[in-house]
Amino acid sequence: MMCGSCSNENAFKLMYFKYMDKVRGGIPPNDEAMKSCLDNLSPGTPRLSVLSFHGGFHGRTPGALACTHSKSIHKIDVPLYDWPVADFPRYKYPLEENTQENTAEDKRCLDKVEEILERQTKNSNPCVGIIVEPIQAEGGDHHGSANFFQGLQDICKKHDIVYLVDEVQTGGGPTGKMWAHEYFNLRDAPDIVTFSKKMLTGGLYHKPDLRPNNAYQIFNTWVGDPSKLILLDSVLKTIRQDKLLETTLKAGDVLLSGLRRLENQFPSLLHSARGIGTFCAVDADTSARRDQILAKLRTEGVHCGGCGETAIRIRPALIFETKHANIFIESLEKVLKTF
Amino acid sequence: MMCGSCSNENAFKLMYFKYMDKVRGGIPPNDEAMKSCLDNLSPGTPRLSVLSFHGGFHGRTPGALACTHSKSIHKIDVPLYDWPVADFPRYKYPLEENTQENTAEDKRCLDKVEEILERQTKNSNPCVGIIVEPIQAEGGDHHGSANFFQGLQDICKKHDIVYLVDEVQTGGGPTGKMWAHEYFNLRDAPDIVTFSKKMLTGGLYHKPDLRPNNAYQIFNTWVGDPSKLILLDSVLKTIRQDKLLETTLKAGDVLLSGLRRLENQFPSLLHSARGIGTFCAVDADTSARRDQILAKLRTEGVHCGGCGETAIRIRPALIFETKHANIFIESLEKVLKTF
Repeated sequence: MMCGSCSNENAFKLMYFKYMDKVRGGIPPNDEAMKSCLDNLSPGTPRLSVLSFHGGFHGRTPGALACTHSKSIHKIDVPLYDWPVADFPRYKYPLEENTQENTAEDKRCLDKVEEILERQTKNSNPCVGIIVEPIQAEGGDHHGSANFFQGLQDICKKHDIVYLVDEVQTGGGPTGKMWAHEYFNLRDAPDIVTFSKKMLTGGLYHKPDLRPNNAYQIFNTWVGDPSKLILLDSVLKTIRQDKLLETTLKAGDVLLSGLRRLENQFPSLLHSARGIGTFCAVDADTSARRDQILAKLRTEGVHCGGCGETAIRIRPALIFETKHANIFIESLEKVLKTF
Repeated sequence: MMCGSCSNENAFKLMYFKYMDKVRGGIPPNDEAMKSCLDNLSPGTPRLSVLSFHGGFHGRTPGALACTHSKSIHKIDVPLYDWPVADFPRYKYPLEENTQENTAEDKRCLDKVEEILERQTKNSNPCVGIIVEPIQAEGGDHHGSANFFQGLQDICKKHDIVYLVDEVQTGGGPTGKMWAHEYFNLRDAPDIVTFSKKMLTGGLYHKPDLRPNNAYQIFNTWVGDPSKLILLDSVLKTIRQDKLLETTLKAGDVLLSGLRRLENQFPSLLHSARGIGTFCAVDADTSARRDQILAKLRTEGVHCGGCGETAIRIRPALIFETKHANIFIESLEKVLKTF
């Protein structure tokens, strides 16, 4: 695949094909279906949906965009599928001091998912699967618990629909594992995992039963880019040889403990420090403050971005070490003292 | 852009933005629109359509696939927009012996387009534009006349909608000009032209009034691939230095006159020879015959493909010269004699 968006679009196709194959009991589509689909008409063109989450980002092509709910500017004026949206947990930090509320939040969100799946089936617009990020990255670095992700998988298994984990931002090492979902102790592997960005090209891997029945159902001109695979091969070898996942875990520890120290030191400015590996974030008290902090960080020689409404997001490369993490925390402290 | 599909998807977005800007009289979307679009709901998510043609191919992501009508296997079981489809002309060959029928065919197709545009507006699913290939390539090398393409542009201007010419297959030189639509003597440039394949990456160019009002409405992670642009730069320089468009025109003349000689020599096997530059095709009497011809050509050392139901399509690189065209015609003649 060429990018994250089309990786998700093709993952959706695998979901549709599996669902319709089940609906037909394994019998190939009949002539009426094959003919009507050429005109975008039923039965060849079915009504099916994919469930996604408020605050998620999955790309900008139409199917991926219908599953994206992070910023209006990505979606305004674009006609899209009438697909449903569920709530992704919003936790109180520090997690260890708010276990009861956060467990209740997981339950609330999982109940909502079940409710939507049932409503969609009743309304003849059934969900063929769920797409979810391990960490809602573009939407503001919202984390979900292992309990939440396990619960989602249980729901997918109960309803016999596909569990698609979008690792476009989280995949390839920034969390200290190749795939962020490895942290969730899922009872079974996700049905599909999509990736891009750090993986230098787009792609997906999936369970064998999602393989389409026919050639040319999934296809594109370049079917990937060999030159990107050669680069990726070197990246993967370097990650292993230089033990970059360990480096990332160590640097991540310094980052997160530094952010926690700073949110205690400046409680009116920062809160909700969170992260896995170097995939860390902390919220400012307001959007304006967040933007000021980012601007001032640049004058200190540190280029850092934002996500969601108020989050400062940290997204270093895999060669970011503890010494770099220390520089970052020192620079951020210097900036915070100016307020 | 990364590929032909997402070039078209982003062209569609430009069309939606322009249309909705006009609907609002230049006023930015209000809070209700900005909020509702996050949930895929009206008014922020409007109901809009793009008109395409039977036999057309524009890609495999959802918007592009809703405009694709060449083969069922591309579309079956994929939920799509309920967008309308018009007829693309189907001419009788040789063109010069069938002018009256072919002119009537143009008129029939153009009338149908007008009829659909009016119906779509009446049904509150207005068309924001028309997407069309200069030659329906994947669908069977169906050509449209300059008269047809001028008529389409007139209709777009009359209805104040966008005229998008998809040059993903035809662009980059195979017709002997950089863009196939240069042959149509359009009174004005197309509003948008999309390209990919021979251009090594994806992209579009468009009139200035289609520029979005806001940043981040059109965006992706890589916003193109610099390494592909470096390659493209060399390709473009080579096309100019080595006069490859002239080479292509000369080789194309030999190809087309050779195909015409062969269809006269083997009238029960071949018909409807057609082409611009080396972008040539000829139809076999049946699909089975076409496939046999292609298979036998391979045993003669010639790799050639098919498109549509019965077409043999010729798609050489720009370094294909008259001597290669002669080899091809000789090989094809040798194969035809075996039937």
